[in-house]
Amino acid sequence: MSGESPRRRGRPARASADGTGPGARERILAAARTRFAERGYDKTSVRGIAEAAGVDPALVHHYFGTKDEVFAAAIEVSFEPALVVPAILDGPREEVGERLARFFIGVWENPATRAPLLAVIRSAVTHEAAATVLRTFVLRRLLERIAAGLAVPDPRFRAELAASQMIGIVILRYVIRVEPLASADPEQIVAEVAPTLQRYLTEA
Amino acid sequence: MSGESPRRRGRPARASADGTGPGARERILAAARTRFAERGYDKTSVRGIAEAAGVDPALVHHYFGTKDEVFAAAIEVSFEPALVVPAILDGPREEVGERLARFFIGVWENPATRAPLLAVIRSAVTHEAAATVLRTFVLRRLLERIAAGLAVPDPRFRAELAASQMIGIVILRYVIRVEPLASADPEQIVAEVAPTLQRYLTEA
Repeated sequence: MSGESPRRRGRPARASADGTGPGARERILAAARTRFAERGYDKTSVRGIAEAAGVDPALVHHYFGTKDEVFAAAIEVSFEPALVVPAILDGPREEVGERLARFFIGVWENPATRAPLLAVIRSAVTHEAAATVLRTFVLRRLLERIAAGLAVPDPRFRAELAASQMIGIVILRYVIRVEPLASADPEQIVAEVAPTLQRYLTEA
Repeated sequence: MSGESPRRRGRPARASADGTGPGARERILAAARTRFAERGYDKTSVRGIAEAAGVDPALVHHYFGTKDEVFAAAIEVSFEPALVVPAILDGPREEVGERLARFFIGVWENPATRAPLLAVIRSAVTHEAAATVLRTFVLRRLLERIAAGLAVPDPRFRAELAASQMIGIVILRYVIRVEPLASADPEQIVAEVAPTLQRYLTEA
């Protein structure tokens, strides 16, 4: 999520009968991740998330807005763009592809972050609404930040090419699980994919 | 499909009451493509395909075998591996990436071949059975033929890396449709992706 804290809008910071208070936002996010991961995008509702988090649905809307925005927040918690993008862009320019490849594989090799992201991919491939969220929120927010750090023509196009290589690895390695790709050492994937990302991101 | 013709097993080559005869195999394939494209993998049955093709379900089994095998055949008709793979491998080795990229984009830019392939991708991402078919039949048959033509170590791993780049383009350009990638000139995609495929397929 961005640096803006919706809590500033005046909700109490202590626990109360409607589930507000410290940790409510985190409980909602955790519930949303689990729901979206288990049921997919279209079978998950704000009401269901609120129930699982033990809060009033109005609080979900208060913190996040629409279901689409809860979905975006539940995804982004896996790879805080505000923190991750600068870390990827910082450092030698000729190693940006390797830094991105290593971060990306790290997120996907971790079962805790993999499960909700798999749900996102599955939902986005099958439901127009979820595709719109991925397109509008996640890719845009993540890619625009990467693009902003790249001094190349068509930065967004180049960021999308890099994203295409990463999503393809996700599909074949983690979703369809073709061998030997699915069992390959993560470092071997990083070594193969890094030059591709490097070329897309820095050569025009 | 392979060169083997199931018709040799003794079915009549003329039209008959149960729908056999010239064109029956093609009608079944066309019906299967439409059904899988419109309803996805798990909601399509051999009985439904037979009905749409105007043949007896036994004839579907006779020509293709199981539902999985009909599914594989319905996909492969978009890019006959037996014809396509030699065409991609033939020619200057340093241009194999470009030939593959151009063929791949050509198939996906054609709405007639795109629709059933989109259904395949959607099914494979959401249903384990369809993923198994894609993994076992299509990728294996296609990739093994490409791999056989490549004098590099780990040829199957390298073919899978190339496939990952192509599938990633499919997801972002044709399924999720992020811009500017979705509206980019096909030749621009070919120009960007060809060096990636070239490296995966020929450098080890």
